[in-house]
Amino acid sequence: MAKIRLIEVKEEIQADNRAKAEALRSRLAANKTFLLNLMSSPGAGKTTLILRTIEALRDDLQMSVIEADIDSMVDAEKIATTGIMAVQLRTGGFCHLDASMVEKGLEGLDLASLDLVIIENVGNLVCPAEFDTGAIKNAMILSVPEGDDKPLKYPLMFTVCDVLLINKIDYLGLSDFNVAALRQRANTLNPRITIFEVSSKTGQGIAEWTRWLKRQVDEFRSG
Amino acid sequence: MAKIRLIEVKEEIQADNRAKAEALRSRLAANKTFLLNLMSSPGAGKTTLILRTIEALRDDLQMSVIEADIDSMVDAEKIATTGIMAVQLRTGGFCHLDASMVEKGLEGLDLASLDLVIIENVGNLVCPAEFDTGAIKNAMILSVPEGDDKPLKYPLMFTVCDVLLINKIDYLGLSDFNVAALRQRANTLNPRITIFEVSSKTGQGIAEWTRWLKRQVDEFRSG
Repeated sequence: MAKIRLIEVKEEIQADNRAKAEALRSRLAANKTFLLNLMSSPGAGKTTLILRTIEALRDDLQMSVIEADIDSMVDAEKIATTGIMAVQLRTGGFCHLDASMVEKGLEGLDLASLDLVIIENVGNLVCPAEFDTGAIKNAMILSVPEGDDKPLKYPLMFTVCDVLLINKIDYLGLSDFNVAALRQRANTLNPRITIFEVSSKTGQGIAEWTRWLKRQVDEFRSG
Repeated sequence: MAKIRLIEVKEEIQADNRAKAEALRSRLAANKTFLLNLMSSPGAGKTTLILRTIEALRDDLQMSVIEADIDSMVDAEKIATTGIMAVQLRTGGFCHLDASMVEKGLEGLDLASLDLVIIENVGNLVCPAEFDTGAIKNAMILSVPEGDDKPLKYPLMFTVCDVLLINKIDYLGLSDFNVAALRQRANTLNPRITIFEVSSKTGQGIAEWTRWLKRQVDEFRSG
């Protein structure tokens, strides 16, 4: 006698979210607005990387930032000091963003006038990887102090990202972080992932990253 | 010049969820089915407490269990060994249940024939506290090895619960867990909280807990 009934809540929620994400991508294509979804653990350096990216690209691209946070506005305040418009999404109990939350964030912006919108997702390597936000590309930061074993623990995050930024490389000398091992683990999960080594603190590697990002935006807008 | 726009995604999602939870409670009242939402950290002993509760009340009440898990069916399999119907909700990336997920779980059950349905929520002291599941009462387990400081770190969980089960009291001798301090912290946050000290392993305190639960169910069904 079967006494267990299995219900895959996830599948229904995900199917609904995927449809919303596809609709959002169509709208972004129509407006020629590139949407980048940036994910990482708390403290890996998302906000500082975004500040560096604004600094490097602000003369070439019209930008805005959507900051997601469970309960604060600190990051949006940092972005706003640059004069770039920041939308703060307070998610409450949610540990991730989905496409409808991103849609709400975009309501505050004039898409047609924007070339690049960066989403700073909630700091977490698990839930955000599960949800398509409607972004054109997904990026993640792994910082050196977190360790080179993270692809083994959070494989989905490495699988869904188009680009991996190894941040805080100025800590490499103080750490047993093995960049070659990390690259191999990330490439095994995702052979197409693009990897940059950067330090948002010293600026090392930022030019390579922002040149790549600019090219992605240009190709998307001309396609 | 205001460069930040704040969007409370949480408020909109919560308002929508609260409406669904209220509708579910009306349906439960019409069917005289008591729904208990049981929350705790992973490993605090939710499944074992449910097994003890089934054992104590199965002659008096028609029961069923909804098990929520990010990605396994282990707990539902344990419940099913008792012959009680278990519904397994696989939530995927979600760290909590909301009212619409519980609604889906209940679809698999004949509410009119059930006196008590227990939801084993996802193991987490943060997100589940934020979402009204539609339950008649909320319960939480805090196990002695977790420490007596948890009301300071997770105040919302203690605030939303009607009952707190201090589990694994057989560990008290091995620990500096201060029951009086924990009771005071919980009562400060929530003066109406009912507290039981139990050990699902030895059975200590289970009779007091299940007597209280039986009385709640009886009052609800006769009201």
